[in-house]
Amino acid sequence: MKLMPPNQPWSGIFPPMVTPLKDRDQLDYAGLERLIEHMLAGGVHGIFILGTTGEAPSLSYRLRRALVETTCKLVRGRVPILVGITDTAFVEAVKLAQFAAESGAAAGVLAAPYYFPNSQAELMEYLRHLIPELPFPVFLYNMPSHTKTTFEIDVLREAMHVPEIIGIKDSSGHMLYFHQLVRLRRERPDWSLLMGPEELLAESLFFGGNGGIAGGANLFPRLFVNLFEACQAAKLDEVRRLQTRILEISSNLYRIGKYSSSIIKGLKCALHQKGICDDFMAEPFHRFRQEERQMVQDCLRKLESSDSF
Amino acid sequence: MKLMPPNQPWSGIFPPMVTPLKDRDQLDYAGLERLIEHMLAGGVHGIFILGTTGEAPSLSYRLRRALVETTCKLVRGRVPILVGITDTAFVEAVKLAQFAAESGAAAGVLAAPYYFPNSQAELMEYLRHLIPELPFPVFLYNMPSHTKTTFEIDVLREAMHVPEIIGIKDSSGHMLYFHQLVRLRRERPDWSLLMGPEELLAESLFFGGNGGIAGGANLFPRLFVNLFEACQAAKLDEVRRLQTRILEISSNLYRIGKYSSSIIKGLKCALHQKGICDDFMAEPFHRFRQEERQMVQDCLRKLESSDSF
Amino acid sequence: MKLMPPNQPWSGIFPPMVTPLKDRDQLDYAGLERLIEHMLAGGVHGIFILGTTGEAPSLSYRLRRALVETTCKLVRGRVPILVGITDTAFVEAVKLAQFAAESGAAAGVLAAPYYFPNSQAELMEYLRHLIPELPFPVFLYNMPSHTKTTFEIDVLREAMHVPEIIGIKDSSGHMLYFHQLVRLRRERPDWSLLMGPEELLAESLFFGGNGGIAGGANLFPRLFVNLFEACQAAKLDEVRRLQTRILEISSNLYRIGKYSSSIIKGLKCALHQKGICDDFMAEPFHRFRQEERQMVQDCLRKLESSDSF
Amino acid sequence: MKLMPPNQPWSGIFPPMVTPLKDRDQLDYAGLERLIEHMLAGGVHGIFILGTTGEAPSLSYRLRRALVETTCKLVRGRVPILVGITDTAFVEAVKLAQFAAESGAAAGVLAAPYYFPNSQAELMEYLRHLIPELPFPVFLYNMPSHTKTTFEIDVLREAMHVPEIIGIKDSSGHMLYFHQLVRLRRERPDWSLLMGPEELLAESLFFGGNGGIAGGANLFPRLFVNLFEACQAAKLDEVRRLQTRILEISSNLYRIGKYSSSIIKGLKCALHQKGICDDFMAEPFHRFRQEERQMVQDCLRKLESSDSF
Repeated sequence: MKLMPPNQPWSGIFPPMVTPLKDRDQLDYAGLERLIEHMLAGGVHGIFILGTTGEAPSLSYRLRRALVETTCKLVRGRVPILVGITDTAFVEAVKLAQFAAESGAAAGVLAAPYYFPNSQAELMEYLRHLIPELPFPVFLYNMPSHTKTTFEIDVLREAMHVPEIIGIKDSSGHMLYFHQLVRLRRERPDWSLLMGPEELLAESLFFGGNGGIAGGANLFPRLFVNLFEACQAAKLDEVRRLQTRILEISSNLYRIGKYSSSIIKGLKCALHQKGICDDFMAEPFHRFRQEERQMVQDCLRKLESSDSF
Repeated sequence: MKLMPPNQPWSGIFPPMVTPLKDRDQLDYAGLERLIEHMLAGGVHGIFILGTTGEAPSLSYRLRRALVETTCKLVRGRVPILVGITDTAFVEAVKLAQFAAESGAAAGVLAAPYYFPNSQAELMEYLRHLIPELPFPVFLYNMPSHTKTTFEIDVLREAMHVPEIIGIKDSSGHMLYFHQLVRLRRERPDWSLLMGPEELLAESLFFGGNGGIAGGANLFPRLFVNLFEACQAAKLDEVRRLQTRILEISSNLYRIGKYSSSIIKGLKCALHQKGICDDFMAEPFHRFRQEERQMVQDCLRKLESSDSF
Repeated sequence: MKLMPPNQPWSGIFPPMVTPLKDRDQLDYAGLERLIEHMLAGGVHGIFILGTTGEAPSLSYRLRRALVETTCKLVRGRVPILVGITDTAFVEAVKLAQFAAESGAAAGVLAAPYYFPNSQAELMEYLRHLIPELPFPVFLYNMPSHTKTTFEIDVLREAMHVPEIIGIKDSSGHMLYFHQLVRLRRERPDWSLLMGPEELLAESLFFGGNGGIAGGANLFPRLFVNLFEACQAAKLDEVRRLQTRILEISSNLYRIGKYSSSIIKGLKCALHQKGICDDFMAEPFHRFRQEERQMVQDCLRKLESSDSF
Repeated sequence: MKLMPPNQPWSGIFPPMVTPLKDRDQLDYAGLERLIEHMLAGGVHGIFILGTTGEAPSLSYRLRRALVETTCKLVRGRVPILVGITDTAFVEAVKLAQFAAESGAAAGVLAAPYYFPNSQAELMEYLRHLIPELPFPVFLYNMPSHTKTTFEIDVLREAMHVPEIIGIKDSSGHMLYFHQLVRLRRERPDWSLLMGPEELLAESLFFGGNGGIAGGANLFPRLFVNLFEACQAAKLDEVRRLQTRILEISSNLYRIGKYSSSIIKGLKCALHQKGICDDFMAEPFHRFRQEERQMVQDCLRKLESSDSF
């Protein structure tokens, strides 16, 4: 199992891996292997599985375990693996975490339980009970658009005293919130602040962030790694150039369908067209039909005709 | 297995049963039996398990199955049992439905998959795929505060052509929406319209509703059955008197805690104090502490000192 | 000036009058007179001007005063006139109230100031400062969809100690909230609870409401007065029959356009087609074009071909 | 009247001036003069009056005109003056714009009319009708938290064809939206993109923004002008240092009260303590009481003990 150096924040690009599927309850094993190798060849610093982009809540428990096990085997410790363990049921979250740790995963990623609306007091109590049951360190995952619950700053101030919590992935899309995280982090410099939406990656890295969980890094891993390195080197012009490309992808590829599911659909469809993996989607979503596929193909061609991807 | 008469809407009081727990992953069997007998003695027309009040999403899958099995055994066909089969994972919803039907449950209750925001088109496609896989008829369950997705009228208009869908439980709390359901139902008179929030039960019964999934009927089943019968008999004064009592419960017992979880906490605490079942709550919630318990006790005493409960 | 009997709640049907306009800043005087006579002939118990249906915030201050003055003259004390005095500027609210009282209006209707989000503490302080400056009694107006601020129950409990506040118009559309108002009103039986959305009028009257500010009563005043009287007489079947008609109007006439402005547009268009007044709308809205006009005409014909309108 | 160079975007720091008040309907003239001189001494590039920070909707129309007139006189053309002309009434917006232009203001700032929820189609039609009536160029003002209406990208794409619209102030707080504005602006390079929330100023300037309407520049104009210049010069370390100070102000001074009104209250209170102007607030708000005043004083002392303010 690959670990990050101790007492330092995790940093770099950690793609939230899509889950290659052949059917409603069946992994696309060959696609999974190609996808992993594609991302590793791009230089990513770790892989995050069973997140939102990985459609985790839509997968059967059996399949989730199969994905964890297979991914760990295929990665062979080359980079650390983070596993989403969010669940509405406390007991299931613990069981999946144990399975993941035994399979070789390095850390868990935990959003708020997402059926019941949680108060912040209930959320903190939940963390206090759950964390000691987990076999590995954990990133919190702020994802209010899907969980209905924000990790508010006061709860995070308390969560910082829990050594097993080692950072937060913020997918709120709110830079105002992210800047508060940066201020808060002074109290615990080993915390890692990872940005969710890739459109905000550049600025988050400039102002204190440590890395990104960028969906687009499934498809164009090198682009995101390049952006990360340009930010580290404070090459402002290069950052602007790469950031413009990232916004180009986002403004085209992710808006082909009509619904909020378009991001994952666009990613899977593009990966399929590049011959990497199947584009089957777990219910309640479905892969693009012919018309949108054509648009994805046109979009990919346009994007790749420029350099740096 | 007790069934409703064919081609008629289900009608009456169907308590959304709380799940009596002894511990994080253990049923309170004796409490469960007492609770079932208490509700049946009150004259309820069916029992709905694994709903929101039943904390279904917070229970392990093993426990959900144990609850289904035990409840069906204890009820012994005296009333029909409805089982919540809502799940973010299609495959798990189907598996639970099959288990429930084999155990003797009469119907399923299905809310929108609740992690990803769904478009209405995706929701309809989901229904079209899921319903044929289910072994029993299904009620839709409109619960936007928890699922983030409303069953909009246009989708319901289409869902009415699916014979296996036999009604809807509306927990939106919006009478404007409910009145639209009543209009819509003209197209399918065997559909059953069941009201969620008990505070709206009386008016929903007056203006076209068929019954209620009233949480308070765990505690005071006779009160709700009386209200149902008074509405049937168009005894307006009696309805007003009973409705006032129901609002009294709601305005007192359900507001003792500070959070939206107070309704379930108050119910479980009151059931505990009446010697019916344990008040253990599944994470992320926790039973009331001593101070709130005392308030529940005072509240119960006040409520029960008046007649009709 | 016509007043309601002292120490009793105002009750009955108070149409929120549309503002007949000839142009962006010009009243349709003849239309205004016909509209008033049409409503009075229908038996309404009062008229509410400068509300949401009256497009008050879209009218120039000069025009608002012209409307107040002319309406008071035309009504000639036959029924009491309520005037919306809601304003983001304290000083303007006071000035309009003074003008209205001098013109003969009987009461004001006051929503929360609607640009800044208000806390409940700020809202209560605002009431405490504003009410003493007003020359007539005031109804609060709960309209969170437009003002972003709800009059929460705790603020209303305090507001009940202010004698000059004599009731509340609730346009939240939430019967759960309305039932709380009914409970609260026990402390001040002379308070009047007036329902905004006409689709909820019947049930609000059954369970403690005193009347309605029903937009549809601009068009079909007699229908709403009949409903009010049937509720008073507890004629349940008649209430259901009339309520069904009201829902018919709402489900057809008010949904002809695509936006939330369709209610006012539909009303004005229908009034125009009945020869009562112009259908000019104040910016940012605009009257229906030919296509929608045709639909309104068809809809009116269908509605009026059944009896009771 | 000072104008910006033609065919270039306005750029720099434009404080949204607080409105110094002595009483509910009375300007603090001496304070206004000191405030203007304080900001000009700090090097600001223009002044924006009658915005949200200026409490415009809470001021009487008479007072708004007095403020426009006096500010123009006191500034004496040294920098351009922008005037908020947002109004729920079309006619009043036009009248205020005419008055402002005659008084010497250089441009208007226009948010969506904010009582009625607007559809995007209605919003575009509103712009098409209003802009030709205005005597000066206009910035759109995206302020959905207060107006309930976002200027969506499709509407802006169309608005870009209107030459009199010369830019947008974005107070949504969403960098995802802002990046879309930057992409869109390619079609009209003379458009100015001005950031509202000062916490996002640095990153907006890095990635394509032209300036900021920063409330804090009432108090610390030099700090914001320094940040603007450091961004222009791409001095990344300096930018980070100044940005940290700005976040320090925001995290302390603006959070002293409990409500969202705390930003304006904190600003006015701090200006009062620096001897610049009165801290009277227009209803529905009120200045801080003694306890919060003390906190503001402590906070100011701490902030000013570090350099660069």
